[in-house]
Amino acid sequence: MKITQNARRAWKITLDYTNMTDLALGDEGISLKELHKRKKQAQAAHAYLKENRGKAELSLGWTELPYCQAESVKEMLRLARDVRKRCDFFVVLGIGGSALGASTIFNALCHLHHNELKKAERKAPKFYVEDNVDPARMRALFEIIDLEKTCFFVVSKSGSTSETMAQLLIVSSALQKAGLPFKEHLIFATDKGKGNLERFAKKFGPIDCLYLPEGVGGRFSVLSPAGLFPAAVLGIDVKLLLAGAAFMEKLNKPADLQKNPALMGAVLQKICMERGKNISVLMPYSDHLKCFADWYAQLWAESLGKGKTLDGTPCQVGQTPVKSLGVTDQHSQLQLYAEGPFDKVVCFLSPQAYEDSAPVPDFSTGIPDLDFLCGHSLEELISAENRATAYALTKAKRLNYTVKIPTLNPFVLGELFYFFELVTAYTGYFLNVNAYDQPGVEAGKQAAFALLGKKGFEPLKEELDRSKSDPRFRI
Amino acid sequence: MKITQNARRAWKITLDYTNMTDLALGDEGISLKELHKRKKQAQAAHAYLKENRGKAELSLGWTELPYCQAESVKEMLRLARDVRKRCDFFVVLGIGGSALGASTIFNALCHLHHNELKKAERKAPKFYVEDNVDPARMRALFEIIDLEKTCFFVVSKSGSTSETMAQLLIVSSALQKAGLPFKEHLIFATDKGKGNLERFAKKFGPIDCLYLPEGVGGRFSVLSPAGLFPAAVLGIDVKLLLAGAAFMEKLNKPADLQKNPALMGAVLQKICMERGKNISVLMPYSDHLKCFADWYAQLWAESLGKGKTLDGTPCQVGQTPVKSLGVTDQHSQLQLYAEGPFDKVVCFLSPQAYEDSAPVPDFSTGIPDLDFLCGHSLEELISAENRATAYALTKAKRLNYTVKIPTLNPFVLGELFYFFELVTAYTGYFLNVNAYDQPGVEAGKQAAFALLGKKGFEPLKEELDRSKSDPRFRI
Repeated sequence: MKITQNARRAWKITLDYTNMTDLALGDEGISLKELHKRKKQAQAAHAYLKENRGKAELSLGWTELPYCQAESVKEMLRLARDVRKRCDFFVVLGIGGSALGASTIFNALCHLHHNELKKAERKAPKFYVEDNVDPARMRALFEIIDLEKTCFFVVSKSGSTSETMAQLLIVSSALQKAGLPFKEHLIFATDKGKGNLERFAKKFGPIDCLYLPEGVGGRFSVLSPAGLFPAAVLGIDVKLLLAGAAFMEKLNKPADLQKNPALMGAVLQKICMERGKNISVLMPYSDHLKCFADWYAQLWAESLGKGKTLDGTPCQVGQTPVKSLGVTDQHSQLQLYAEGPFDKVVCFLSPQAYEDSAPVPDFSTGIPDLDFLCGHSLEELISAENRATAYALTKAKRLNYTVKIPTLNPFVLGELFYFFELVTAYTGYFLNVNAYDQPGVEAGKQAAFALLGKKGFEPLKEELDRSKSDPRFRI
Repeated sequence: MKITQNARRAWKITLDYTNMTDLALGDEGISLKELHKRKKQAQAAHAYLKENRGKAELSLGWTELPYCQAESVKEMLRLARDVRKRCDFFVVLGIGGSALGASTIFNALCHLHHNELKKAERKAPKFYVEDNVDPARMRALFEIIDLEKTCFFVVSKSGSTSETMAQLLIVSSALQKAGLPFKEHLIFATDKGKGNLERFAKKFGPIDCLYLPEGVGGRFSVLSPAGLFPAAVLGIDVKLLLAGAAFMEKLNKPADLQKNPALMGAVLQKICMERGKNISVLMPYSDHLKCFADWYAQLWAESLGKGKTLDGTPCQVGQTPVKSLGVTDQHSQLQLYAEGPFDKVVCFLSPQAYEDSAPVPDFSTGIPDLDFLCGHSLEELISAENRATAYALTKAKRLNYTVKIPTLNPFVLGELFYFFELVTAYTGYFLNVNAYDQPGVEAGKQAAFALLGKKGFEPLKEELDRSKSDPRFRI
């Protein structure tokens, strides 16, 4: 599909930060003067990303994903065609960054009850992302799939993620028992030339492997095969996803804060952090973007929640991301946002048009609270509620801004992914932390190894056995 | 079903707060001395709830729900039998407290892929909770249900919730067009003797109405018909749910902090708030309790996020609830929790046994990172990860405690609901706020009315039209 200049323009997302300014919020707002003061720092962040674009050794591989995958996309489309032909069930086995991209794309661009549609309407396999090891979930899955018609897509960069490997072992054994060849039921996505999945594929293969490009961390991998291959299996135009990301990469050209939406987004968030807003709420007004908030939560929390700066100085920074769904969570969280502590900044994801309008029919009841709705539509209602919530928060002097989404399609979704990745990278630069590591999860991983009796972790096991719960503190 | 004393004992949940103490956390922990200092205040809170038990005028109707619904339960079971016989689809129309209870019970006690099971395995209608007005969602629903075999359960206390009323109008019109009688396809839950749903039922009825007991706010309504009727339709033992809540009500008898888990839970949270922990993470290690975290998020945020105390003094209090799912969110949020700011307290919901174990078979690969998992089970893995995460957080001096769940059944779920309701009520008492109102959502509601052209809101509409976004702040 050729994308015209007009389409690009029509599909451009817009950052609207009116309600972050002192003009809207008084003292609680951010002044133009304050923004001007940040210009130089913003330029430095911009220069860093520009100079180091694509450098795997700096974990900046993700910046090049819109451009470097022509061959890989061909391979994905070839494999996806085959899966779509043969399979009624497609199951992603992965966790964290290996799962959230697939879930987000599925939620955003497929029918909200995809798996309950008839096959002819679905036009793609039923779709599952198994991103937990709750045994009830594994059993539930096996009770509804037909193994013979299932393809498992196993995603792990290193192939050492215990959760995913345990799932793989269970699935492999089930396939073997059923006499089903791995080649037809397993596809891997992993790092090239290293890691356990490749070793597994060599030993028990042939098994098709898609390779995750170098220098792309899990939480920045949605536009790699981790997210793109599931999208292709669902029949989503992956080239359009990448084109949207490339478009955002172009919108990121200006080094001038006031012309670069991602750079401005990062500066705004950084100022909020400095002012003690330790909570970042992402509030999409769309059921199709519910998972997007989960994707963002990982990106933001794991990239910026850090205990030391790049030079090793202890720091303890990071905003806690909160997922909120409009309008649903107006009836759950809004009371707190409007009247509770001044500790958060809210980012709305606001569709400017919905694929349907769902008119409320002229069903006259004689009851005023019902009749005023007649002649409107759910589209008008949800849009009005979005605008009303932004107004109410602004009136209560609460920082909020809006990412306006012209319409939801693969191109715009690609833009959104790349936009928030840029905002995260810039904010990491401002905080002077490594946005691409996660040293804080090591202690937990090792403790789990110890508890499961992995070799070499015996001393830790002893320590764990000593740190038992105290009966005085149990009720 | 008769519940023996032994069953009660075996099903008792346990609060374990070892990792909140200075013995586990050093200076970051809470000392026994500090807890002792709270004894009197805790006793006062306990006395208040005891003295005012069941008082509708103080919104304490929820405290009596385990005991006052014998008649109502009979009616629910009668209606549910009929729905189960006639209907293949059961749709809850409601939002906030009118939806979260049903979602939570469904998620906790039904098959994780309930709607995808075959009818004979499901033994209950397919189940949907439509708690948003995204037009795509309404369309998606209509594309998969068979109207003739669908029962819509419409829940709104006042019958003036715009979102639910808009849905009702759409559904009513569709039923009318299809020539289907309301009596067979609509059931209401609402306040008795007032409100629009009753008026609607009178005008267009007969329509069966279940009544929400007096003095029970939406977010405390899960154990009223709002949650119990959907449970009954799903074939869940609602009497067991209520028995569990009654059991927790008994565990709440002691006025002594150290013998009362809910009172202790509230004191711990209050101390955390005083120490600037403005984030309350609820982290269940169970896919069946994912929605429970949403239910808790509403309860906690809307009850405690307040702008003034009971005597009208401005205060701006409230912790922001964060939903986190173990082990999934270890790969998303744990980095932040372990190394980011000291701004949160984590509560684990930890099953002590899962309904399955899901053994990892002895599928020897020769790859150490895989082979050490063989012979274990997913149950062992998820339990080990839970323990490992608590250990890692404790080692990083982060406040965390655990609610141990012996097994997940209706009785235990009832206990959990009532436990967190008590914790919320006590914490509201400590904060000296009204835990049962939500004045902060009014401004947004009125703005939405104005934008939709409701009569009487014209001046506000003009104000909204003036407060437009500023082109200088759009990129």
